[in-house]
Amino acid sequence: MKYPSIIQNLIDQFAKLPSIGPKSAERLVFHLLYRPQNELHEFSQAIDYLKGSVKQCQICFNFSESNPCYICNNIKRNKTIICVVAKPQDMAILEKTGSFDGTYHILGGNINPLENISPQQIKIKELVERIKNNGVKEIILALNPDMAGETTSIYLTKLIKQFPNIKITRLARGLPMGADLEYADEITLENALKDRREL
Amino acid sequence: MKYPSIIQNLIDQFAKLPSIGPKSAERLVFHLLYRPQNELHEFSQAIDYLKGSVKQCQICFNFSESNPCYICNNIKRNKTIICVVAKPQDMAILEKTGSFDGTYHILGGNINPLENISPQQIKIKELVERIKNNGVKEIILALNPDMAGETTSIYLTKLIKQFPNIKITRLARGLPMGADLEYADEITLENALKDRREL
Repeated sequence: MKYPSIIQNLIDQFAKLPSIGPKSAERLVFHLLYRPQNELHEFSQAIDYLKGSVKQCQICFNFSESNPCYICNNIKRNKTIICVVAKPQDMAILEKTGSFDGTYHILGGNINPLENISPQQIKIKELVERIKNNGVKEIILALNPDMAGETTSIYLTKLIKQFPNIKITRLARGLPMGADLEYADEITLENALKDRREL
Repeated sequence: MKYPSIIQNLIDQFAKLPSIGPKSAERLVFHLLYRPQNELHEFSQAIDYLKGSVKQCQICFNFSESNPCYICNNIKRNKTIICVVAKPQDMAILEKTGSFDGTYHILGGNINPLENISPQQIKIKELVERIKNNGVKEIILALNPDMAGETTSIYLTKLIKQFPNIKITRLARGLPMGADLEYADEITLENALKDRREL
C-alpha cells in the first residue's frame, strides 16, 4: 500500500489527463491536500459544471454558451469563408489577431494513422455538408505544418477540389517574427524563398 | 472575449496548480470537454472528497485514513528512529524500498528564504516536541541535496544537537546506480570519495 485509496484515486484521475504523468499527478494531489477545502470545492464544481453550461456549436463545433455559437450567430461575420482548424484553442488564437472576419470549422483533431485517428473520426463529413448547403467561396486550411496537419490538408484539398468554384488556401509558411536566419531550419528557409513577396 | 466564462474559470483553476501554465491549463480543459460527463463527475467528486476522508496524522503529519496514521499506529515500527522528510511523496518512496522500519516526520517543505519559507512555517517545533517527549535515539535527515534541503539540514542539526544522546544522520551521498564516472559532477565524485566504504 502506497497511498490511501482516496488520494490514489485522485492521482489516477489526474494521470489520465494529457501530458500529466503519475509523478506530476502525485505532486498536484499533494498540493491540493495543503489547500483549503473551499478552494477544492470551487475547483470540483468548475469541472462538474463544465459540460452542463457549455454547448458545442452544431455548425462549426466550437464550444460556446449558445448553439449556434457567438461567431456563427454573428451577422457581421462572412459566412462564405471558412477557416478550418484542428482544435478550439487554434480558433481562439486566430480570433485574438482580430484580422479574420469569416467563420471557422473545428475538426476536433487531425488525421493521424499513428494515433488511429481516421477521417471518419473528425468533423470532415460535416465540413462537406457545410460546403454543399451554403454559398461557401473559400476554405482556409489553418492546420499545423507537421505530419498530421499535412496529411489532413492533403486529404481535405483532394476532397474539396470536387466542388467547383471553391478557392482552397492554407496559412503562409515562412520566417516567424524575430527569427534569426542563421538558426532557421532548411524547410522553413525553403518555404520563405518559395513564397517570397514583392515589395 | 476569448472563451466562455465557464471554460475560462476552469482554465484559471488548473493554472493555479504547480507547474501548470495557462497554455497547459487550456489544453487540459479542452481535453475534458471532449470526455463524457460521468468521467468529469468522477473527477470532480474525487477532488471534493479528498480532504473530507483524508486526515493529517498529528504525530508525523503524513496523510492517511486514520489519525494517528497507519505507520505511527503500527506497533512493529521502531518509534525510537525518526526519518525527517520534506514531502509526503518522499516518505512514500522511502516506504517503497521496504528497508526502513522506523517512523517518519513530514516537515511540509524546506526552509527557503527565497520562497519566504521560514522555520516557523514547517513542522520543526512539532519535531522538537516529539524528541522531548519520547525515547528517540536517532534522527535521519532525508532531505534533498540542494540549497533548501541543505539549509534545513544545517538548521535541524544545530537544533537537535542540544539534546544529548541523540544520533543525527543523513542519507548517504555518492554515485547513483547506473551512473557513469565520466559524466558524474565534481561534487558527487567528491562525496563518493569522501564517504568511500571498505569492502
